[in-house]
Amino acid sequence: MADSYGRDSPIAAFATVPGKSALTLIRCSGKGALECMAGVFSAGKKLLQTEGNTVIHGWITSSGERIDEVLVSVFRAPKSYTGEDSLDICCHGGTAAGKAVLHTLKSGGFKDALPGEFTFRAFMNGKIDLTRSESVMELVSAKTDRSRGHAVNRLSGVLEREISEIKKNLVEVLSGAEIFLDYSEDEISADPDEAAGRLPDQNKAKETLARLKRLAETWQTEKIYQEGVLAVIAGRPNAGKSSLFNLLLKEERSIVTEIPGTTRDWIEAWISVDGIPVRLADTAGLRESNDTVERIGVQRSRGLLEEAELVIYLLDGEAGISTEDTAFIEERRAAKPGLLVLWNKADTAAPPQAEVGGNTLIAISAKTGEGVTALTRAIAAAITAQADTADSGEPCASLGSGAAIGSSRQKNLVDTAAAALEEALRLADEEEPLDLIAPLLREAVNALGGITGEVSTADILEEMFSRFCVGK
Amino acid sequence: MADSYGRDSPIAAFATVPGKSALTLIRCSGKGALECMAGVFSAGKKLLQTEGNTVIHGWITSSGERIDEVLVSVFRAPKSYTGEDSLDICCHGGTAAGKAVLHTLKSGGFKDALPGEFTFRAFMNGKIDLTRSESVMELVSAKTDRSRGHAVNRLSGVLEREISEIKKNLVEVLSGAEIFLDYSEDEISADPDEAAGRLPDQNKAKETLARLKRLAETWQTEKIYQEGVLAVIAGRPNAGKSSLFNLLLKEERSIVTEIPGTTRDWIEAWISVDGIPVRLADTAGLRESNDTVERIGVQRSRGLLEEAELVIYLLDGEAGISTEDTAFIEERRAAKPGLLVLWNKADTAAPPQAEVGGNTLIAISAKTGEGVTALTRAIAAAITAQADTADSGEPCASLGSGAAIGSSRQKNLVDTAAAALEEALRLADEEEPLDLIAPLLREAVNALGGITGEVSTADILEEMFSRFCVGK
Repeated sequence: MADSYGRDSPIAAFATVPGKSALTLIRCSGKGALECMAGVFSAGKKLLQTEGNTVIHGWITSSGERIDEVLVSVFRAPKSYTGEDSLDICCHGGTAAGKAVLHTLKSGGFKDALPGEFTFRAFMNGKIDLTRSESVMELVSAKTDRSRGHAVNRLSGVLEREISEIKKNLVEVLSGAEIFLDYSEDEISADPDEAAGRLPDQNKAKETLARLKRLAETWQTEKIYQEGVLAVIAGRPNAGKSSLFNLLLKEERSIVTEIPGTTRDWIEAWISVDGIPVRLADTAGLRESNDTVERIGVQRSRGLLEEAELVIYLLDGEAGISTEDTAFIEERRAAKPGLLVLWNKADTAAPPQAEVGGNTLIAISAKTGEGVTALTRAIAAAITAQADTADSGEPCASLGSGAAIGSSRQKNLVDTAAAALEEALRLADEEEPLDLIAPLLREAVNALGGITGEVSTADILEEMFSRFCVGK
Repeated sequence: MADSYGRDSPIAAFATVPGKSALTLIRCSGKGALECMAGVFSAGKKLLQTEGNTVIHGWITSSGERIDEVLVSVFRAPKSYTGEDSLDICCHGGTAAGKAVLHTLKSGGFKDALPGEFTFRAFMNGKIDLTRSESVMELVSAKTDRSRGHAVNRLSGVLEREISEIKKNLVEVLSGAEIFLDYSEDEISADPDEAAGRLPDQNKAKETLARLKRLAETWQTEKIYQEGVLAVIAGRPNAGKSSLFNLLLKEERSIVTEIPGTTRDWIEAWISVDGIPVRLADTAGLRESNDTVERIGVQRSRGLLEEAELVIYLLDGEAGISTEDTAFIEERRAAKPGLLVLWNKADTAAPPQAEVGGNTLIAISAKTGEGVTALTRAIAAAITAQADTADSGEPCASLGSGAAIGSSRQKNLVDTAAAALEEALRLADEEEPLDLIAPLLREAVNALGGITGEVSTADILEEMFSRFCVGK
C-alpha cells in the first residue's frame, strides 16, 4: 500500500469514530491543503493569511450552501504532525455532518487518506522515526492503562534513544576495526595474521551485546501488555462457567470491550488484570449437545483451549470431581503451564481435598462471589509468572534507560543485530581475520538502523503503515 | 439535571466517541480551566500566556509521568463555544489514552461535564438561543444529509430570526393596546366600552397569526426529517420479506445504522429514501411458529405494524393471493394511509391482476432485483405524500424566510402563541374590552420568548439540555 501513498497531495480523513458524539474531527494534510480548504470555507481569506497553530471559526460551504459550522486548526509546514501544511477540522458529531463535510472537502480537491498515510508522511518528512510511528498505533490499540504507559514510553523516544546509543557504540567498534583494516591493507598485506583477533575495544563490543540481549528480553513482557493474554474458562456442563464469566466481568471495573457471542462459538470480553489485558473467554453451552453444529463448536472451543495462555477449570462442587475432570486437568498440566483449578459452589459444598492432579484447588462461589478476590489474585499471579515480571510490572526494569521493544519487527532486528555481533565476537576470540569480522559488525549496525528507519525498504514501510487505521 | 449543572466550575468530557480511531477529543470549559490544565501540562506556562484561538503542543503529565502527547486548542472568554475560558484537547485515539487523560484532568481539578452542560453554559452566557441549542443536538442526531441541511438551517439562526420578527410585530400590537389601556384608565373609567373592539393595528395581528400558523405547519415535514418514518415489510411466510429487506439495504447506499435482530423480534435498519430517514423493519420469521415465544413475537410485530407510517406488503407470486392477504390489505387500507402492495417473484410468475383491494400491484423480484427502482420511487412517493411535501423537499418552502420548527417543544409554544392571538382577535371582533384582550397578547409574546429562551424556567432548561449527549 505504501507505494500508493501520495507524495504530498492533499488528503483528508476522519480522525475520530463518527457516531453519536458532540464532535467529529477530520484531519487534512498536503501541499495546497490550505488553498483547497479556503475554497470550501466561509473564512477562506483569513485562513490563507493566518499563522500556524491558530484556530479559525467558520462554515464549510458548498455552492453557497452551509454544510456545517466548524473550528479549523491551521498548521503550517514544517510545524505539523506530518511536516506538511495541515488542518484539523472540528465539525459536529453524528454521522451526517462529518460525512457531508468530508464529501465537500473531496469536491474541493482533497483525496481520501489511506490507512497510516498521515504517519507515513510524518516519517518520510523526518518528524518521527519508525519506533515512534509504531508506538502511535500501539497507543491507539492499548487496552489497559499500563499498556498505554508502555506505548507512551516509546512514543516519547526512549527506545529510539536506546537504539541510537547502542548503534553509536557499535559504529565505534566497527570504525576501529575498519581503520585497522585500511591501515593493514595500506601497509603490509604480507602478514594477514597481524589483523587477526584484534577487535579494537572488544570490551565495548561485549557490553553492547549484553545490552542488546537485555533489550531483546523486554519483548517477552511487552508482547503481553500489547497483545494481551487469552484466558479460557472450561469445565463440565452446569459447573457455573457463565456465572463465573459474568462475575469476573463485574468484578473488574476496567472492562474494555464485550463481544456478544453472536458470531462466535463462545463469549469473550477484555478485562484488565493488574494492568495486563486479558481476553477472557467462556466456552459455556458447548459439549451440551450432540448435533453437528454443536460438535463443530466443541472442536473450535478445543482449539481455543490449546491457544489459551491460561485455563480456568471449574469443578462443580455439587457434582464432585469426575474422572473426566481429572483427565482434563492432568492432560493440560502435562501439556502447558497456565492452569487454575476452581472448586465452584463452595457456598453449599466444601472442597473434599486440597488439590487435583497437583493443582491446588481454589474454592469459590460464582453465585455469592465468595473467593473471587483470591481468584483474581491467582489469575494475576499465573499471568505475571508467565510474563516473567515478578517485579513491579513497571516497563523494562531490566534496562536502566527504561527502553523496551514495541513490536515483533523491532524484536527480529534486535535479534539479528545481536546474532551478528555475537558471531563477530566469536570470530575475534578465535583470532579470525578482521575482514571476516567487519561485515558482521556492519550487518549489526544496519539491523539497528532498520529499527529506527534510517535503513529501510519500501516493503517494510508498506507492511508497517498499512496496518494503521485511517486518519493516522 | 439543569440545577446540578455547575455555575462556571471547570468541567471536562469526551467530545468524540472513544474507540479505535486516530484521535480522541476532550473538551474543557470553565473559570480556572486554563489554570487547572496548566498543572497537568508540560507546556503549562506557555498555555497561561498564550492568546485565545491558538494551538499548543505538549504532554499531559501526572506526577512527572507522561500520560499522552496532545495538541491543546486554547479559547479565551468570551470567544469560545461556552463563552468561558475553554480548551479542546486532542489526544491519541483508542480507549486507554483518552481515559488516562480525562482521569488526569479530573485529578487536576476538572469535574465530569453532565450531558448538555457545555451547550447549557453557551445558552446561559448568551452565545446561542434555545432554537440554536436544540439544532446542535438535532444535527448530531441527523440520519440523512437532508436532515442535516434542515438542522444547519436552524443552527445558522434562521428560525431564531423568524421568531424575533414575529415577536417584534406582536409586541407592537401589544404595546398599542397597552398604551390605549393606560390612557383610558387615566382619563375616564366611567365609560369602559370606549376601550372595546379597538385593537390597534388589527391587520398586523392578523398577518402575524397567519405567519404563526404557516410556521406551525412546517413541523409536519420537519418532524419526518428529524424522527424519520417507520416502514414495515409484512407478508405471509416465504413471500420473500428478508430478501426484499436485504435488497433495499443494498440498493440504498446511504444506510445509516443496522441493528442486528438479537434484542428485538424483528430486524431493522435506517435507510435514506430521497433524504428522508426511513426505519425499515422486517418482520420475517414471525407467524411461522405456534409456540409461546413466537406468539409473543407476533403480538409485538402487530404493534409495530400499527405504529408504521408505511407498510410494504409482499405477495408471494408463486403461491398467489390468499384470502389472508386480501383481508390484511383491506383492513390496513381502511385503518390508515401508507400501504404498498408488492407482487414478488415476478421473474417466475406475472401478476394475475392489476390491483388488490384498491391497491395497485407493484411487480418485483427480490431475487433478481427486477422492479426495485420503481419500488424505491413508490416508497419515496408514499412517504412524501404523508409529509405533505409535494414540492422540492427543500426546507420550509411555505415561509419565505426558510424558517421551520425544529422540535415539539417549539411547536407547542408556536401553537400556544397562535391560539392566544386567535382568541385575542376573536374577542376584538366581538368588541370585548381591551383589558381582556391584552393578557392574551402578552401570553402570545411570552410563548414566543420561550422558544428562543428569553423567557424560560429551570424546568424547561433541565428537560431540554439533559437530552443532549455528554461533551455537548
